[in-house]
Amino acid sequence: MKAEIIAVGTELLMGQINNTDASYMSKKFPECGVFVYYHTVVGDNAIRLENCINLALSRVDVVVLTGGLGPTQDDLTKETVAKALGLKLIFHKNILADIKAYFEITKYNSRNTIMTTNNEKQAYYPEGSLILPNKNGTAAGCIIEHQVDGFMKTVILLPGPPWEMEPMFDEYVIEHFKKKNSEGLKSVYLKMFGIGESAMETLISDIISSQTNPTIAPYAKKGEVMLRITARYDKQTDDADKILAPVLDMLYKRLGQYIYADIDIEMKDVTAKLLIEKDITVSFAESCTGGMFSQMLTDVSGISNVFTGSVVAYSNEVKENILKVKHSTLENYGAVSSKTAVEMAEGIRKLCKTEIGISITGIAGPTGATPNKPVGRVYIGISSEKVTESYEYTFSGNRDKIRYYSCLHAMNILRLYALSKG
Amino acid sequence: MKAEIIAVGTELLMGQINNTDASYMSKKFPECGVFVYYHTVVGDNAIRLENCINLALSRVDVVVLTGGLGPTQDDLTKETVAKALGLKLIFHKNILADIKAYFEITKYNSRNTIMTTNNEKQAYYPEGSLILPNKNGTAAGCIIEHQVDGFMKTVILLPGPPWEMEPMFDEYVIEHFKKKNSEGLKSVYLKMFGIGESAMETLISDIISSQTNPTIAPYAKKGEVMLRITARYDKQTDDADKILAPVLDMLYKRLGQYIYADIDIEMKDVTAKLLIEKDITVSFAESCTGGMFSQMLTDVSGISNVFTGSVVAYSNEVKENILKVKHSTLENYGAVSSKTAVEMAEGIRKLCKTEIGISITGIAGPTGATPNKPVGRVYIGISSEKVTESYEYTFSGNRDKIRYYSCLHAMNILRLYALSKG
Repeated sequence: MKAEIIAVGTELLMGQINNTDASYMSKKFPECGVFVYYHTVVGDNAIRLENCINLALSRVDVVVLTGGLGPTQDDLTKETVAKALGLKLIFHKNILADIKAYFEITKYNSRNTIMTTNNEKQAYYPEGSLILPNKNGTAAGCIIEHQVDGFMKTVILLPGPPWEMEPMFDEYVIEHFKKKNSEGLKSVYLKMFGIGESAMETLISDIISSQTNPTIAPYAKKGEVMLRITARYDKQTDDADKILAPVLDMLYKRLGQYIYADIDIEMKDVTAKLLIEKDITVSFAESCTGGMFSQMLTDVSGISNVFTGSVVAYSNEVKENILKVKHSTLENYGAVSSKTAVEMAEGIRKLCKTEIGISITGIAGPTGATPNKPVGRVYIGISSEKVTESYEYTFSGNRDKIRYYSCLHAMNILRLYALSKG
Repeated sequence: MKAEIIAVGTELLMGQINNTDASYMSKKFPECGVFVYYHTVVGDNAIRLENCINLALSRVDVVVLTGGLGPTQDDLTKETVAKALGLKLIFHKNILADIKAYFEITKYNSRNTIMTTNNEKQAYYPEGSLILPNKNGTAAGCIIEHQVDGFMKTVILLPGPPWEMEPMFDEYVIEHFKKKNSEGLKSVYLKMFGIGESAMETLISDIISSQTNPTIAPYAKKGEVMLRITARYDKQTDDADKILAPVLDMLYKRLGQYIYADIDIEMKDVTAKLLIEKDITVSFAESCTGGMFSQMLTDVSGISNVFTGSVVAYSNEVKENILKVKHSTLENYGAVSSKTAVEMAEGIRKLCKTEIGISITGIAGPTGATPNKPVGRVYIGISSEKVTESYEYTFSGNRDKIRYYSCLHAMNILRLYALSKG
């Protein structure tokens, strides 16, 4: 089934919030055989909203509307849907009772959360609606099945705030379609580092173009690429894994060296897991990244088992006094050099008494370039008891991108070390 | 002028990424007299995309398309726009040269980020396009002005990745419309910290509802709120500042204590500027924030004049050995305590020989809570030669939010110190 998600709210058109509701549903809908073909955002305006609803009814089977179910005059979704479908709005005593109960429970949270007569508007729903209770707010959702121009359409109304919408979607909407569907879907995500999107696509273009089931879709994210491989299968007769296996096999043969995960997970999580599993203690010495690398790894809860600490060594004095980089190294080779990276990595490893020390020093820009070293030049060092090495990179882009790419490459170096360790 | 933003990409319809491009542009467009009426997301499908483009051309003046400018078979935006407008695609030698140069700069990063023949596709643009160079990737953008059914329409193509789209939008698109407009618009942004959105709105609701020129629009961001005050004025006869002044006056009277900037700038930039201007050297000792605070301040170019370095002290050993937090303090009060925060701030100030030392120690969660200290408990210390103090907070939310709020509050403490210094 094809779906469109219409988010209703001027605040979205002012850029105040992102339409995360649409992403959330889009990611989950395929689980129950619903495929999202369009997202639309429209303001709190009855005529424009009605036009959007009519367009959606003409091009998809399932129309989901989020937002505009509140008590104020701006909230037009139910009225406009009812008009578009030619349905009356019906008063639901039990919804009003639920709203009253909700206010009773939450009245101590804030002195301004009091029920007004406006809230009665929230008890009206289009006739024939299957009501979806809201445990986290006052706006109930609903599912309406209705013929439009001879075709059966499903129209779903959900509240806008994600903490209200998401549980309602999971509990009622997904289940509604699962019950209806005989076909299933299973996706595998191959995450890669060290290859660009177009190079990857060139390597496997024959596989992509010859596939219909499973389908293969490439994605690019800052510095990383991903393939989504999705099999459609009959729940009664097929085994999804058997449909996926031969294609995965081919992809691994061509791209295996770049693949760091077969689920949709970030490299920092993969690296953290390896470090924790293998009990590899680490510490970092950062210059141009200014703490970003430490921050990235400490995003992962539980990392305190192996991460002891870092030094952000911005000034040369800190590099010398705390990390014990030699004065002569800084003088002869400069702070952005292979030799400084090596000494920083050694220095932090010894200072924090860890198995591994990682260092990053570079020119994040926009200033700081020299005739020999352009903006984007970065050295990454890795030090263990046995050996200390450094790698040279030249990244393009702005300060933020250069810093981020430096961290991704350092993360990959750390990941490869952890992988190689028996 | 009315605008619609069409994001092209199946990855958006799979929920892999949020359509942050649309939010970014929606927020900024009003500055140059363009008002966003619709967001649309459509997949990498030529027919559906063409229908969306035609619909947009029929209902708005400005159609912005993001994404689908890459080198792969999936990337259809230019071809489809050209078809919808009846324009040819023209090869641009200099764009191909730019792409080659981009690969030249970045070729050492990874042996597989190599230019393929696919990339030549990226040098074709609809005839009559004003080309917008991309400094952060290979896909140039363009602006096309073209008559459709007797009406002049502007169609703008931009790359999808935010770090490519945002600088291009700021540098070329905003400027393009600013030049065209006879009516001027001037916006002042009041940025605030320490007050919630609804509390702020309550304080000034009478001012908001009585204003038509300038208009007042509130925005809320993680931990911060902002007002955009926008005056429309005739470039020949009006003085925008005179239209803004009385309203700004009223707003400052009610909200002045929370306002940290009157332009759309982040607190880290305000703080960095103050530190640099007043030559206040700083160093940080971070525990739960794991480098985030250092990373935040070092986002600002030029900060190396006053920021010397930080220690991310995750383990107690690092707190003791490097920051010289007393063993007895850690034993008796714990790593998350006011006393530890004080000693960390003193320790880093002395270690890095700076005027100010800032420390952050807390429980970012999801684990680590104790009966006396819930997840979200954070202590922030500030140390100067004269005095060392600490502040206690209890933040709600997940790990990321707690870390981020900790950094914002630490930044505010640093800002207030710098402000107070004569």
